[in-house]
Amino acid sequence: MNKKIMLINPIHTSEYDKDFIYQLNKYKNNETKVKVVSFQDNVGPTHLEYNCYESVVIPKLLKTVKKAEEDGYDAAIIGCFYDPALRACREIVENMVITAPAESAMHIATTLGDNFSIIVGRRKWIPEMSDNVLKYGFDKKLASFKPLGLGVHDFQTNPEVTKQKIREAATEAIEKDLADSIILGCTVEFGFFADLQADLGIPVIDASLAPFKYAEFLIDLKNKLNWSHCKKIGYESPPIQEVSEFNLF
Amino acid sequence: MNKKIMLINPIHTSEYDKDFIYQLNKYKNNETKVKVVSFQDNVGPTHLEYNCYESVVIPKLLKTVKKAEEDGYDAAIIGCFYDPALRACREIVENMVITAPAESAMHIATTLGDNFSIIVGRRKWIPEMSDNVLKYGFDKKLASFKPLGLGVHDFQTNPEVTKQKIREAATEAIEKDLADSIILGCTVEFGFFADLQADLGIPVIDASLAPFKYAEFLIDLKNKLNWSHCKKIGYESPPIQEVSEFNLF
Amino acid sequence: MNKKIMLINPIHTSEYDKDFIYQLNKYKNNETKVKVVSFQDNVGPTHLEYNCYESVVIPKLLKTVKKAEEDGYDAAIIGCFYDPALRACREIVENMVITAPAESAMHIATTLGDNFSIIVGRRKWIPEMSDNVLKYGFDKKLASFKPLGLGVHDFQTNPEVTKQKIREAATEAIEKDLADSIILGCTVEFGFFADLQADLGIPVIDASLAPFKYAEFLIDLKNKLNWSHCKKIGYESPPIQEVSEFNLF
Amino acid sequence: MNKKIMLINPIHTSEYDKDFIYQLNKYKNNETKVKVVSFQDNVGPTHLEYNCYESVVIPKLLKTVKKAEEDGYDAAIIGCFYDPALRACREIVENMVITAPAESAMHIATTLGDNFSIIVGRRKWIPEMSDNVLKYGFDKKLASFKPLGLGVHDFQTNPEVTKQKIREAATEAIEKDLADSIILGCTVEFGFFADLQADLGIPVIDASLAPFKYAEFLIDLKNKLNWSHCKKIGYESPPIQEVSEFNLF
Amino acid sequence: MNKKIMLINPIHTSEYDKDFIYQLNKYKNNETKVKVVSFQDNVGPTHLEYNCYESVVIPKLLKTVKKAEEDGYDAAIIGCFYDPALRACREIVENMVITAPAESAMHIATTLGDNFSIIVGRRKWIPEMSDNVLKYGFDKKLASFKPLGLGVHDFQTNPEVTKQKIREAATEAIEKDLADSIILGCTVEFGFFADLQADLGIPVIDASLAPFKYAEFLIDLKNKLNWSHCKKIGYESPPIQEVSEFNLF
Amino acid sequence: MNKKIMLINPIHTSEYDKDFIYQLNKYKNNETKVKVVSFQDNVGPTHLEYNCYESVVIPKLLKTVKKAEEDGYDAAIIGCFYDPALRACREIVENMVITAPAESAMHIATTLGDNFSIIVGRRKWIPEMSDNVLKYGFDKKLASFKPLGLGVHDFQTNPEVTKQKIREAATEAIEKDLADSIILGCTVEFGFFADLQADLGIPVIDASLAPFKYAEFLIDLKNKLNWSHCKKIGYESPPIQEVSEFNLF
Repeated sequence: MNKKIMLINPIHTSEYDKDFIYQLNKYKNNETKVKVVSFQDNVGPTHLEYNCYESVVIPKLLKTVKKAEEDGYDAAIIGCFYDPALRACREIVENMVITAPAESAMHIATTLGDNFSIIVGRRKWIPEMSDNVLKYGFDKKLASFKPLGLGVHDFQTNPEVTKQKIREAATEAIEKDLADSIILGCTVEFGFFADLQADLGIPVIDASLAPFKYAEFLIDLKNKLNWSHCKKIGYESPPIQEVSEFNLF
Repeated sequence: MNKKIMLINPIHTSEYDKDFIYQLNKYKNNETKVKVVSFQDNVGPTHLEYNCYESVVIPKLLKTVKKAEEDGYDAAIIGCFYDPALRACREIVENMVITAPAESAMHIATTLGDNFSIIVGRRKWIPEMSDNVLKYGFDKKLASFKPLGLGVHDFQTNPEVTKQKIREAATEAIEKDLADSIILGCTVEFGFFADLQADLGIPVIDASLAPFKYAEFLIDLKNKLNWSHCKKIGYESPPIQEVSEFNLF
Repeated sequence: MNKKIMLINPIHTSEYDKDFIYQLNKYKNNETKVKVVSFQDNVGPTHLEYNCYESVVIPKLLKTVKKAEEDGYDAAIIGCFYDPALRACREIVENMVITAPAESAMHIATTLGDNFSIIVGRRKWIPEMSDNVLKYGFDKKLASFKPLGLGVHDFQTNPEVTKQKIREAATEAIEKDLADSIILGCTVEFGFFADLQADLGIPVIDASLAPFKYAEFLIDLKNKLNWSHCKKIGYESPPIQEVSEFNLF
Repeated sequence: MNKKIMLINPIHTSEYDKDFIYQLNKYKNNETKVKVVSFQDNVGPTHLEYNCYESVVIPKLLKTVKKAEEDGYDAAIIGCFYDPALRACREIVENMVITAPAESAMHIATTLGDNFSIIVGRRKWIPEMSDNVLKYGFDKKLASFKPLGLGVHDFQTNPEVTKQKIREAATEAIEKDLADSIILGCTVEFGFFADLQADLGIPVIDASLAPFKYAEFLIDLKNKLNWSHCKKIGYESPPIQEVSEFNLF
Repeated sequence: MNKKIMLINPIHTSEYDKDFIYQLNKYKNNETKVKVVSFQDNVGPTHLEYNCYESVVIPKLLKTVKKAEEDGYDAAIIGCFYDPALRACREIVENMVITAPAESAMHIATTLGDNFSIIVGRRKWIPEMSDNVLKYGFDKKLASFKPLGLGVHDFQTNPEVTKQKIREAATEAIEKDLADSIILGCTVEFGFFADLQADLGIPVIDASLAPFKYAEFLIDLKNKLNWSHCKKIGYESPPIQEVSEFNLF
Repeated sequence: MNKKIMLINPIHTSEYDKDFIYQLNKYKNNETKVKVVSFQDNVGPTHLEYNCYESVVIPKLLKTVKKAEEDGYDAAIIGCFYDPALRACREIVENMVITAPAESAMHIATTLGDNFSIIVGRRKWIPEMSDNVLKYGFDKKLASFKPLGLGVHDFQTNPEVTKQKIREAATEAIEKDLADSIILGCTVEFGFFADLQADLGIPVIDASLAPFKYAEFLIDLKNKLNWSHCKKIGYESPPIQEVSEFNLF
């Protein structure tokens, strides 16, 4: 049975689409069909370093998610490490799997090692990400955040330089903060994990591959065991008629 | 010096505007000027019980906040107990105070008593509100959530019935969960706190008056001591030029 | 590529082997090959309700795990909800995936819903399981433990009676403790999850299927991305020569 | 309506009284009347660096608080960052507002920024202050304590030197501990906050102005909304007759 | 070697002195010499249900502790379950052991069982005791507080009635809150533990015997291993000369 | 009354037996009789740095504990800082006291000072020990782990070098991590505590003497007050007949 998975890169540039398509196809399962979308209909944020940028793209993200379910997708991935609108996305779908980078990466990291450090771009990102670490229950598993002093669009400018910076931050996380796994805290930190984990000798979790593989996993759980997002309380859907009256999604 | 405060009721109905104007004017300081706005330009959610409804109104909320600052307001209040987009609002303003119901109510409650229970409408609301309790650091101060089985628009249908339901839930919170203050977990639970606290003998915190009074307080701190939202890290504003390029707010 | 997975039911009876084989084969992926083993070489504990019973079977469990890796298995599942010797098993293998019921079930439950209740047999089990909830970081996600007053060998004596008891305990967990997912806290509580989740309307996580599906997932992560248990710190293997000198495994 | 506020500097020296009068009058509201008292009737501790010194002055503090209420004060401020006898003071008053430096400062700091560091005099102070951070629920918001190696009476000896030491400690808190607000952990660290926050670019909370402004706020809440310290459980007053029999206050 | 231990019952009545002498002598070690003191020089609180009552007796408590050390006592016990002035007492002594009921009882209970419930007199007591549970690090070990609706002086009025009330509360703690040890949360709940633990089948920790036996233990650690209260940071003593200048103790 | 205490050094070498006998006899009470045993019947782990080594020796440890109780011992000490099989040992005994290094040391340290750092051999040990810190409730009391880069058998190779390494690590713990007590996190770190605490001026807790003295204490509690490990829930013993059928211990 096919697994149709859409990665939504919720930014107004298609700059990284091909890279994500390449990465996902490289590591997917046989039965998985990958689609990557970004927002190109008008101008808008080309990165989401600010919570207010997230806020602006979320309505479009929700529509894209809703449409994905109508188009028969089995899962949608929210392609930003802040996990924007994770609850809202799970509310609006009837049955589709929704995954997000931070949630998936932390669950994977804590079943591979005892704790993790998160390598982020700028210090600005840390407070909102800390809130998520706490919300998901992993505050006691967090060894440290390590900021690189790079913005989202800096990561791929000179990949070798970025990789070296990550290596140094990760090494400090291992030596000083006693980390035994590394999470790359931005989806645009792609292309680095494989070399780094070979060098460092500990798992390095990529921020788009984590929710992608977790999506394949949750689709399998849903298809085989009917285990899916609980729609009775926290992820309860709004009434269909009300959504229609409000002219939403 | 005047304190201009705008309560943004981020829903597509003006149904409660007059009530909020009445409440705020009743309890305001002399120098405070109150304005209440809601969204009436088109159809949209008339309540925010769902995270996806919040998501849809947030861009409009942000624009309203931005405009409020341009119009010389000293503070804007986010009029929903989920505290939607609190971080985003603090990011986009230069200097204006932003308050929100849950944050303000919990800070007030824990300086008046040892703990609090939150009286909510439906069980659906509890998970997202729990995340906020945890985020603000008050999980050890939470005695309980008490759901009434009422939606947002049910609270004012028959106020005496609602008041009686709140009284019963609060009494159980006091007797069984050892609560010693009560927070009303929805801005539309207005008009009840005064009678209830007279009956119950413990503070009952109203969800719109809490952030309103807290806004007056933070304006005073800003004006007198220059204590205001830290704009250097977690609430850093996006670059002006980028905001302009992205055509935002 | 085949995924060879061994469920080790670490008790001295083959009584449930066929049931586990049936369950696992029913829900497995195409490429998965299932084997179930139990201990039958001599007398010993036929259940592990006591920590001292676990202690006694662990050396045999370790040898079985070690042998499984030598025989080319991709994963071994520790078939007891106390997750006995999870760290030791991950230490002694070179590369094989190790999963266990409580760890896997809690990770799955918290990506499907906001929290969970665990339905256990006897109150005796709760303290040790509580330690694990805390260790894995999920203490804030635990709604409640619900003991049924049944021993391990009582669950399958009269399945309909057991199912009814679980349904009642789960209903109380949902109503009173605000749970929105249910974990069955013993591998011998098998055969119940599907009917129960259909009735209750929320996910019901089976204690052997959770680590089984999680094992398939981790094998996939290992094969495709080389993400596997971190062998550098907490799961570091003992030196081969020392193991040989000590005549172990 | 006037707000009469008494700052009780609970030490046996009037050395700092004028400074506090100056500070409070500089930042007060129009309707606020300020009084500062210290203990001069006999010899006794001139600082409270030791918990045993606090213990000795507390009975006098309680009498002063009781008398303040009888004299018509609206609020009393406990002028020591250990917040000595906060519960006792709230018990003995009928209706007067009681505030204290650490409680007020932490509440203010966490509504302005995501976390805080506390700049203290000596390491000796940290354990007792840590207990308070935990008690108020802010342990997850504490970035760090930074000790300066100065006693209470050293702060004002050479203010420029002190300011420089605070600046260095705060800078380290910002750079290394990722703090985004600073609390000055002693009331005698006065006169520094304005310059420091101008330099550092983040809020610097003064330890006597925080409870002073919070007192104005709580008086307003009491006068307008009848929100005041809950006298039913944790701050229950002792029976009047018993107090009289015991010859107290 | 003799162990001279003084139990300070810090209330203005000698009503319970004989009972404490009897209890302590009944359970003491051979080498232990027991003395019980209370305050009878003037009128004052005959119980410490209020934090403000504690505050009033603490200076006298400190003088008694100081005098005890001068008189060659090896340990002093603070005879109130709020553990008043525990830090101050440890500061002012040079070398003497100081123990207190709540601290000792929680340490003992958590090495005997997995958790504990505390049986208190009135609800009023719970917030301050909760603060102590948290301060000592035992919040995750607390199953529940169970208030009996009795004041301090009610416990011994009709001991059989009290014992029955405790039995009922403890039974509910065991059945409903899953407690597996019981702490009696007032020193005046004496004379009950032995019968109750025989009935209930789980440890019942007496509030004066716990710190008494812990004092014997800490004296032994001090005498044999020189392990004693750390006087370098949190329990640092004030400078002798300063204490003399301030005319203290 | 004699107190017969057995220290079980659960490793396959008698190398340290004499040292432990010397240490325990040096610090014991008059009425205490000390016995030290290790495993010499066959080859096996001579240290327990790996959880899998613990797992292998635990069955032998349990048999030794069971035999000790039959032989009239009052207490058995599990001689490894991982506290292996603490729950299992408490289950299988009827009445005997069981103590273990980490549990005892943390309880003692937190009644002597405000927090502690643990000096360990290798980083490998930290994750499992962290789990125990959390399990016992002391995560907020942990200042830091300090690894020395030494294996178990390195500690006594050159005691002066080891002592110097511990002194440096402890000094850093005091200076940087604000520790005010030190726990030596391996029983083989013996012979160092007395000199170190004389140098450092804060308590240094030895890992075999802590559970030894705690055992004397718990024996006294049991003998005098009948306070002993709760055998009703978490430490419930398995049914005698079942143990016999399973041919255990």
